[in-house]
Amino acid sequence: MTTIHRIHNFSAGPAVMPLAVLEEIQRDLIALPGVGMSILEISHRSKTFEDILAAAEADIRALANIPVNYKVLFLQGGASLQFSMVPMNLLGPGQTADYIDSGSWADKAIKEAKKVGTVNVAATTKGENYSRVPEQAELRLTPGAAYVHMTSNNTIEGTEFKALPDVGDVPLVSDTSSDMFSRPIDVRRHALIYSGAQKNMGPAGLTIVIIREDLLARSIEKKAALPVMMNY
Amino acid sequence: MTTIHRIHNFSAGPAVMPLAVLEEIQRDLIALPGVGMSILEISHRSKTFEDILAAAEADIRALANIPVNYKVLFLQGGASLQFSMVPMNLLGPGQTADYIDSGSWADKAIKEAKKVGTVNVAATTKGENYSRVPEQAELRLTPGAAYVHMTSNNTIEGTEFKALPDVGDVPLVSDTSSDMFSRPIDVRRHALIYSGAQKNMGPAGLTIVIIREDLLARSIEKKAALPVMMNY
Repeated sequence: MTTIHRIHNFSAGPAVMPLAVLEEIQRDLIALPGVGMSILEISHRSKTFEDILAAAEADIRALANIPVNYKVLFLQGGASLQFSMVPMNLLGPGQTADYIDSGSWADKAIKEAKKVGTVNVAATTKGENYSRVPEQAELRLTPGAAYVHMTSNNTIEGTEFKALPDVGDVPLVSDTSSDMFSRPIDVRRHALIYSGAQKNMGPAGLTIVIIREDLLARSIEKKAALPVMMNY
Repeated sequence: MTTIHRIHNFSAGPAVMPLAVLEEIQRDLIALPGVGMSILEISHRSKTFEDILAAAEADIRALANIPVNYKVLFLQGGASLQFSMVPMNLLGPGQTADYIDSGSWADKAIKEAKKVGTVNVAATTKGENYSRVPEQAELRLTPGAAYVHMTSNNTIEGTEFKALPDVGDVPLVSDTSSDMFSRPIDVRRHALIYSGAQKNMGPAGLTIVIIREDLLARSIEKKAALPVMMNY
């Protein structure tokens, strides 16, 4: 075996993978043990793949202490597709969604939500070049809002919410793409958490959504109108 | 090195990958030569990844003889997301899209298109359990339709169009997921071709769209309304 040169990688972009993980992928790349096919060739309906998915979900549930009344979804399209799926599934006609504008990605989420429905920017630090996140006292929340959307960590600006905003009984939706699993997350205080995998969880291409079951009723209601692939 | 047992795989599902391809992936899995990082860790904005993408596009263009006035898009979401993206981008208010219903996947495409706009089923063999594809003489095409949609091969039913339907000047859109690259495709007779990679091109997770440049004008027109990730 030749010596492999690995560099140090401090990029804020895609995550470094643990060497042990890469070595396991490499070892089984030609054929999964006992299966005779590569992970790149097996059916998503096969027991082998279902077992891999179930193990990944169990690991995520254990790591983030996810309660049983939350579903874990493995999706594609990155956080950017969630910018649209969140309002398409959760924001109804006549309703308002509150957005906390704390950085460049929050701003993109707001732009996409406005294509879908009524958005109230509950607070923004855009005028201060997003040098800090909005404080609780600054939030102008809509009573009975469909949800409140926040971005837990702002990759580009390097700011982070140190505590979750108090939004009362309104469902809290958080884009945790750039700090997922980097610190304990109180899933119970969220209604929906979404996260592109490439920053902190794994390779690019996967998006994880953790959604409280009662919110799925809104998706069921919109089943006849929403693209099947966009419906939670 | 231990002996690796590979089985024969005749599944109609995900494709068998050439062993040489699997071996190259395996060899470079820990670190791409000269890069020091795995393909699973590099940025999509890095020159390394851009070069990989450009090489893949060049190979596809050569293999399918794709004219310069067609773009090649690398997307996610499978053919099922294209069932929605095609009408969302190409079907305007007051327009009709013609669909040829030749199998189960064509039927799914029709269901999704109907959520977006006006659909005319130009012909169907559903009443014959999709035992054959509709013939040219059976097509009831709409003059000035936004496009005609077909499914070149019906995986579940095992039927295939042996010749492209004549749709005049109307843009022809084809789901080629299950026969892409299995025979010569006359790209010039299509306005848009889409294909999930997992059947004939590579591992699951990638969708290829080949789109004639003039159709992109319709996407630009819909930019303010469509989710950014759903806009060609």
